[in-house]
Amino acid sequence: MTRFSVMTLFPEMIDSAAGVSILSRASDRGLISIESVNIRDYTANKHGRVDDYTYGGGAGMLMQAQPIYDCYRAIVGEGAAPRVIYVTPQGETFTQQMAVDLAKEDHLIFLCGHYEGVDERVLQTIVTDQISIGDYVLTGGELPALVMIDAIARNIPGVLNNDTSTDYESFSDGLLEYPQYSRPEEWMGMKVPEILISGDHAKVDAWRHQESLKRTKVRRPDLYEAYIKLHPDEDTH
Amino acid sequence: MTRFSVMTLFPEMIDSAAGVSILSRASDRGLISIESVNIRDYTANKHGRVDDYTYGGGAGMLMQAQPIYDCYRAIVGEGAAPRVIYVTPQGETFTQQMAVDLAKEDHLIFLCGHYEGVDERVLQTIVTDQISIGDYVLTGGELPALVMIDAIARNIPGVLNNDTSTDYESFSDGLLEYPQYSRPEEWMGMKVPEILISGDHAKVDAWRHQESLKRTKVRRPDLYEAYIKLHPDEDTH
Repeated sequence: MTRFSVMTLFPEMIDSAAGVSILSRASDRGLISIESVNIRDYTANKHGRVDDYTYGGGAGMLMQAQPIYDCYRAIVGEGAAPRVIYVTPQGETFTQQMAVDLAKEDHLIFLCGHYEGVDERVLQTIVTDQISIGDYVLTGGELPALVMIDAIARNIPGVLNNDTSTDYESFSDGLLEYPQYSRPEEWMGMKVPEILISGDHAKVDAWRHQESLKRTKVRRPDLYEAYIKLHPDEDTH
Repeated sequence: MTRFSVMTLFPEMIDSAAGVSILSRASDRGLISIESVNIRDYTANKHGRVDDYTYGGGAGMLMQAQPIYDCYRAIVGEGAAPRVIYVTPQGETFTQQMAVDLAKEDHLIFLCGHYEGVDERVLQTIVTDQISIGDYVLTGGELPALVMIDAIARNIPGVLNNDTSTDYESFSDGLLEYPQYSRPEEWMGMKVPEILISGDHAKVDAWRHQESLKRTKVRRPDLYEAYIKLHPDEDTH
């Protein structure tokens, strides 16, 4: 059982996403547990505030150290200190390899920021990993935390059913996946490529590999260059 | 009013996230509308199926063309064809610049995949943009679609209140943001750096810039190298 604890100001966002799809099924089967913990429940401020101005000036409010730290202490209790992931555009970029590695942990805590950011001192005190899901600005850490939990949970043994594909081809060989076709054989005048209904598995594999190469070259030149460095004989130009 | 339509097999995921935080406030104020449309409602299959096997073999099921196309037609009606974003790890990587550009559209449709993927022919017929939020594997397109909608909506005039920071510093100058501190001045023995309470704005700015440089160099050497190319005099090694 992998435990995911999410420290947040919007627990309903976490709860509703955790209640559907693969995360819900994995919870029902006892493989994971996802709990949202409302940071606001731990503030010592009598008006329930969790934020204040930034020293040195600047627009926007900062989340203060005390409520976050006390929330963290309540989650951890007397137990061992788990990894604590602060979801932030200032972090390292999340990758599939990180998802695989984090899936080996028993307990992960996510800290979701809002407002302008979080007091640096509480980050230094409790956070072990600062991770970004990409180079774009979001309102809060809840959606990125859910994205990471989804990606991590898929790598926990037993979470993917046999009726789910055990892995997308994407990234497994460093190339994007080839085009795919399902029934009917002809749709709106467009036919499935003949090679795919030929029954010749070697030809199908070769065609798919070439399509992956072509697509990767156009859409993700960075991945293409990395692949060609490892397989110089496959360079198509 | 910017209209976001999300074609999905899990409309409740979209609806619950759209009902909280900044997206909910922007909807209430008539600046955006977010509708989820259930692809399953448009299948011609009498058993309600929307997926089938992949031609050429392979694990997992593929979403078929017909239900997606008919769902799309129902959303667009007699109107102009809007941009249709297929959320897929096979796409270009989403960036802040894309969020800024997409915020200029009147209507955006998102297609959320599930299972092993989507029949290539319907993608070629209706999709204008294939976008990935990062190099990791997720169960479906719903969370990435919500991530993009959040990032895009923040760039629609009026969506950010004055009480929200109009922009994170992140990415605006190509560097990560500096550390920030809020009250109290001393927390658990840790003090706010003196320079931030000095009242000397020039020194505060200089300190923050140096901290941004240091942090970017450690966490995101790719961004650091790009910045130094433009500002060679600032190189610290």
